[in-house]
Amino acid sequence: MNFKNLFAGKYALVGSLLLCLSCLGLQAQNSYNSQPASTNVPGAEYPRLDSQLRGIFRVSAPNAQKVELNLGKKYEMTKSSDGFWMVTTDPLVVGFHYYTILIDGVSVADPSSESFFGGSSMQSGIEVPEAGVDYYLPKNVPHGKVESVIYYSKNEKRYRRCFVYIPPGYDKNPNVKYPVLYLQHGMGEDERGWSIQGKMNNIVDNLLAEGKCKPMIIVMDNGNIAYMKKRPAMPAPGASEESRKEFTQFLMNFGSDFYPIFLDDLVPFIDSNFRTLPNRESRAMAGLSFGGFQTLTITLAHLDKFSYIGGFSPGLNDQAIQTIYKDVPAFNRMVKTFFLSTGSVEREGNSNIKDLHEALDKAGVKNVYYESPGTAHEWLTWRRSLHEFLPLLFK
Amino acid sequence: MNFKNLFAGKYALVGSLLLCLSCLGLQAQNSYNSQPASTNVPGAEYPRLDSQLRGIFRVSAPNAQKVELNLGKKYEMTKSSDGFWMVTTDPLVVGFHYYTILIDGVSVADPSSESFFGGSSMQSGIEVPEAGVDYYLPKNVPHGKVESVIYYSKNEKRYRRCFVYIPPGYDKNPNVKYPVLYLQHGMGEDERGWSIQGKMNNIVDNLLAEGKCKPMIIVMDNGNIAYMKKRPAMPAPGASEESRKEFTQFLMNFGSDFYPIFLDDLVPFIDSNFRTLPNRESRAMAGLSFGGFQTLTITLAHLDKFSYIGGFSPGLNDQAIQTIYKDVPAFNRMVKTFFLSTGSVEREGNSNIKDLHEALDKAGVKNVYYESPGTAHEWLTWRRSLHEFLPLLFK
Repeated sequence: MNFKNLFAGKYALVGSLLLCLSCLGLQAQNSYNSQPASTNVPGAEYPRLDSQLRGIFRVSAPNAQKVELNLGKKYEMTKSSDGFWMVTTDPLVVGFHYYTILIDGVSVADPSSESFFGGSSMQSGIEVPEAGVDYYLPKNVPHGKVESVIYYSKNEKRYRRCFVYIPPGYDKNPNVKYPVLYLQHGMGEDERGWSIQGKMNNIVDNLLAEGKCKPMIIVMDNGNIAYMKKRPAMPAPGASEESRKEFTQFLMNFGSDFYPIFLDDLVPFIDSNFRTLPNRESRAMAGLSFGGFQTLTITLAHLDKFSYIGGFSPGLNDQAIQTIYKDVPAFNRMVKTFFLSTGSVEREGNSNIKDLHEALDKAGVKNVYYESPGTAHEWLTWRRSLHEFLPLLFK
Repeated sequence: MNFKNLFAGKYALVGSLLLCLSCLGLQAQNSYNSQPASTNVPGAEYPRLDSQLRGIFRVSAPNAQKVELNLGKKYEMTKSSDGFWMVTTDPLVVGFHYYTILIDGVSVADPSSESFFGGSSMQSGIEVPEAGVDYYLPKNVPHGKVESVIYYSKNEKRYRRCFVYIPPGYDKNPNVKYPVLYLQHGMGEDERGWSIQGKMNNIVDNLLAEGKCKPMIIVMDNGNIAYMKKRPAMPAPGASEESRKEFTQFLMNFGSDFYPIFLDDLVPFIDSNFRTLPNRESRAMAGLSFGGFQTLTITLAHLDKFSYIGGFSPGLNDQAIQTIYKDVPAFNRMVKTFFLSTGSVEREGNSNIKDLHEALDKAGVKNVYYESPGTAHEWLTWRRSLHEFLPLLFK
């Protein structure tokens, strides 16, 4: 059981910031040559990003004693005579980062920012643009649609919401059936993550327009891992076998109520209500972080239902993974793509995913490994992972 | 020009709370017999609602000097020795209410709540359940879907997002064409309002299942009124003609960049990309608050395109309204339903909408007036208005 790299949202931001040594100490408050972030609410001039991708944050709090910015790294903000608190950060890694503001110690969303569900609450987020990269931006190509869909779960005895991406042309070709990718969010997040933070619809639209992936339906449900009731402490190196077992058991149980919902309620609902190809050759599952743990847990136990598997910075379910080695030729025959990815920055902290890839290679298990350069356990790693994974599906 | 009742979100909460005289001063902190609000994020035990529909709010802020709740009415919260601040409100009106928490004077969203775009920012919201009322809850009926749709606006030279409700059966009946209702949010809100705060999909699904309205497509776009750059002060009674004119001009201009987008980009896009009945007999428009102002402005100038009009607590564009009286028989022939509504509480403060209804009656203009009992300028008024309006469409 590997313990790291499991926590999306606020649990995972540490290490997500690029430390630019030449800029240390140069926290200029100057907003010269800066632009409001695209993630701001309409009309909000701050936060801004300057030409070096430093974030300039500002909060009006004339009566507060202390205001801080938590962007993984914590920054103290400085009060001006006009009651505004400001800070300029180090240059930020491109992509999407969750953040919060601490007003006298209370961690809250920045009123100037759009909010995003991560870290089990509605946090702020800042999108740092990536020069010359547009695969996750809307372009002049045919656009699919993301549908908000209500279905009834017999297991939970309640209505649930999932999001379903349908590709361009779905409506106009009523006799065409499509393969399906089930795509899961991380811990502390929910079914909104992939279409909002992940911009998955743009990624698919753009790949489709280039002819680089097959038209498919993509289903994004809530993995029942939005909230952790009790999280046992992660065992320290050299921790007792008992505390390791306890933590393993916790991980095995966390979000496990999703499995029957997924298999017995969701997949049959999708196959009944969308024009799917309802067979294992046309069904894929992928997930990020703990959603990757869930993906490995579900798919490796149900190779009769899935032939494409993706783990994006996945939590590694060793028990499930061990089943692969029992019959490698069978696994290689059954699984068309077994995709693993991680960010290079998170890999520097914990190489467990790369280690798994190498162990699989050594054992002759077909697999694809992708490492996102310069990124940590964060959404840009997962946008890139999806971008690499989709062309491998349903060939 | 009528100046009141135009501001959704934080501008409009004053007066939205029912004052229960017998409860004054009885702000028991007791959470006995209370339940977490359905609008909380997963796992959040507060805010709660007790059996008298009093809200019990709690925030952890050990280092703050002052914490308040702004629910239209402002409440001071009380600090306990454990660092939690709490307050129990007066009994709340049923329905959805925006709120914020003030941490040492800084107005922020409550980390325990889901966030909703209103008042030009991501605010908290609390859903107060309405005993015995379920027309806006998900039920065991066929469900439509709300699609997130990207379209290109030639007027704005950028991609925009709108939401489109498609009724149950749309996918399975590829030869059926549908009438279209365009449904607009209020000032300080955006295209998310109707499907999130308004729960419009449940309202339509349930009416359809009862056979009380016709299957239709409902389009919800961003009215470009999410943010008010400069809002001139509302003229006081007896204000100079000049200051009244200035304010009128402001209202006429505010969000007017939406009109060509709506008419030249959105409607043609919808008619090209959905199976619509693209004619005036099958096209309706409605809006709440300032979205009602926009609806009156657009539809009354384009009766060649619309035959059903709904203003839910609308801002009244007198200039547009005057055109009705120019040829009453023609108006009555052209407009199949002219629907006006308001909340009884907001009507007590300003009867302009009821006055308009009576003036229309007097002039022989066919119109329908609905008053939502016990509600102010708030979402329950608009859910109820939609529920009353839909059965009148496309008969």
